[in-house]
Amino acid sequence: MQYITDTEKSLDQGEINRAIEAAFADHGNGLVQMPPKVYVTLPAGDFRTMPAYLPSLAIAGVKIVNVHPDNPAHGLPTVMALTIILDLATGQPTAVINATKLTDLRTGAAGAIACKYLSPEKTITLGVVGTGRQAEAQVLATAEEVSLEKILVWSRNPAHADAFAKKLGGRFDCLSVAIEKACDADVIVTTTPSRSPIVRSEWVHEGTHINAIGADAPGKEELDPALLRRARVFVDDPRQAVHSGEINVPISRNLFREDEIAGTLGEVVTLKKKRNHSDEITIFDSTGLAIQDLAIAKLAMLHGRKTELVFP
Amino acid sequence: MQYITDTEKSLDQGEINRAIEAAFADHGNGLVQMPPKVYVTLPAGDFRTMPAYLPSLAIAGVKIVNVHPDNPAHGLPTVMALTIILDLATGQPTAVINATKLTDLRTGAAGAIACKYLSPEKTITLGVVGTGRQAEAQVLATAEEVSLEKILVWSRNPAHADAFAKKLGGRFDCLSVAIEKACDADVIVTTTPSRSPIVRSEWVHEGTHINAIGADAPGKEELDPALLRRARVFVDDPRQAVHSGEINVPISRNLFREDEIAGTLGEVVTLKKKRNHSDEITIFDSTGLAIQDLAIAKLAMLHGRKTELVFP
Repeated sequence: MQYITDTEKSLDQGEINRAIEAAFADHGNGLVQMPPKVYVTLPAGDFRTMPAYLPSLAIAGVKIVNVHPDNPAHGLPTVMALTIILDLATGQPTAVINATKLTDLRTGAAGAIACKYLSPEKTITLGVVGTGRQAEAQVLATAEEVSLEKILVWSRNPAHADAFAKKLGGRFDCLSVAIEKACDADVIVTTTPSRSPIVRSEWVHEGTHINAIGADAPGKEELDPALLRRARVFVDDPRQAVHSGEINVPISRNLFREDEIAGTLGEVVTLKKKRNHSDEITIFDSTGLAIQDLAIAKLAMLHGRKTELVFP
Repeated sequence: MQYITDTEKSLDQGEINRAIEAAFADHGNGLVQMPPKVYVTLPAGDFRTMPAYLPSLAIAGVKIVNVHPDNPAHGLPTVMALTIILDLATGQPTAVINATKLTDLRTGAAGAIACKYLSPEKTITLGVVGTGRQAEAQVLATAEEVSLEKILVWSRNPAHADAFAKKLGGRFDCLSVAIEKACDADVIVTTTPSRSPIVRSEWVHEGTHINAIGADAPGKEELDPALLRRARVFVDDPRQAVHSGEINVPISRNLFREDEIAGTLGEVVTLKKKRNHSDEITIFDSTGLAIQDLAIAKLAMLHGRKTELVFP
C-alpha cells in the first residue's frame, strides 16, 4: 500500500478535464457504481463518505472529505480529503491519497465540462460569485474549455474580490465588480457557502449558463428560486442534488420538484440532453461525485510522492 | 497523520469486550451517528464503507472493508480493512489503521456480548458451525463472558473441524462433531459464508441462544427460516439486518417481517429488552456496526506500530 501526496503538482488541467468528462460520460451511460454520498455531522462541521467503482478505468475506492468552515482560523483548509483505492481483484487497499487539492481540481473540472457543453458561446464573459479556493479552480479549469474574454468577480468582502482580480489579472482580464454586474455575464459560477439566495433572478439575462457549485449540503443555496423556474436545471446526480445540491432547499419548500430536473451532466456529455436554444438559461447543480474523485485519483497515482506502507 | 499497524498484539480480549459493550449501550441509548453501511460490488467480491461518530469516545471515522472469498487462493485474507479516523474539531484525518485483525476481534466481541446477555446459562456447551478465522474469534471472545464447559465444532470439511478442535484443545474441551450434535448446545455460533440454510430448526432445542454471524450480505443465510419463527430475533442494526443480515433472505421471501424483530443488541445491553424465560430460543443477527470499529480503533490507537505521514 502506498501513501501518495503532492499529486497535483505535475497534473495538467486539460488532462484533468478530459478525465472528468470521461467519468461523466460513463455516468451518463450507466457504466458506474456510485451510491449517494453519506453525511455524518460533527460538532463544528461534517464529513462525507463517497465510495464508487469506475470499471472503464479499472479503479474502485472511497473518498472521505470534511467541511469545517472555521478551519482557516486554525490554519487548516475548510475542506480536507483522503481517497482510499482498492485492488479490484482482491479488495486490498493499494493507495491512500491526500486528495485535498485533487478535490478542488476535480470540482473545477466539472464546472468546466458543464461550461463546454452548456455555455451559449465559446468566447465568454465569466461572472464569478465568491472568491475562495474553488472560485480560482473554476476559472482555471474553465479557461481550458472556452475563451475567457473577461472575468467579473464579486465577493461579500470587496477586498477579497480585489485580491482575486489582482491574482488572476496577469493571465486574464479580471475586474472586481458589484454583484449585479458579475451576474450580467454569459456564464456565472457561484462558489459561496451561502445559506440564502445571493444571485437574484432579475440580474440574470436570457441565454446565461450558471454553474452552481457552492451548495453541497442540506440548507445551502445560492440562487433565487425564481431563477430555477426560468431555467433548465441539470444536476450531477439526482439523489445527491435533491439531498444537498442547489435544489435541496427549493425542493424542501415546494418551490422546485425533482421531476423538473432537466437531466444529468452525464446525459449532456453523452449528447442525450443539450441546451435547446441560445436564449435558454441553463443551470448545472454540482454536488461532487465519487467517480470524479476516482478519475482524478487515477491520474494522481501516476505522479506524486509515494511512501510505502506495510499492508496487510 | 499516523499509519497504525500491529494494533491487535497488545490488546486484551476482556478490554475489547467492554469497549464493544459500551458502544452497543450508546447505540441502545441513541447516542451515536451511524448511517447504514454502503455496499459496492467488485468483479470478485465487494467492499463496504462504514462511517460513524461515537461522541462518548470522542471518535469519528470510516471503516472500509472488502469481502473476497477467493483471496485465500492468492495468499490474502478474504476480509481486509482500513479504518480512517478524523479529528472531531477540524475533520482532519489523524490516523489510518490497518483494521483487518481488529475486524475479527470486534465481531467476536459482539457475539460475546450477545452471549453475556442472552445465553440461558453462565456455564455452557458452545456449538460452533464453521471453522474460519471468525469461528475462533467468537470462541475466544465468548470465553471471557461465560464459562465454556464444552465446544462442539462442525465444518463442511471434517478435516477443518478436526484441526480447529486440535488447535483450541489445549485451552478448551473441544470436539469435532456432526452438525446435529453441534446444534445440540446451549449457545450456537454460526460463522459460514453460506447462501442456503445449514442449521435446521429440528436440531435446535428450546432455550438455545444462537449468534448468527456469517450472513453479512444480501443472499446470505445460515439458519432454517422455521427457526426464526420459533425464536425471538435480536439484531445489531435493523436497517443493516434487513438489507444484509441473517433475516435478509427470509424477509425477501416473506418468511419473516421487519416488525417481527424483537429488538437490538443495544436495547438488550441497556436492559430495555431481554430473554423472557429459560425455554425461549433467542437469535442475535450480527451484521457488524461501524461503532464497533470505532470503539476498537480507540483502543488500537493506544498500541500498535505508528508511522508518521505528512498531512495536509
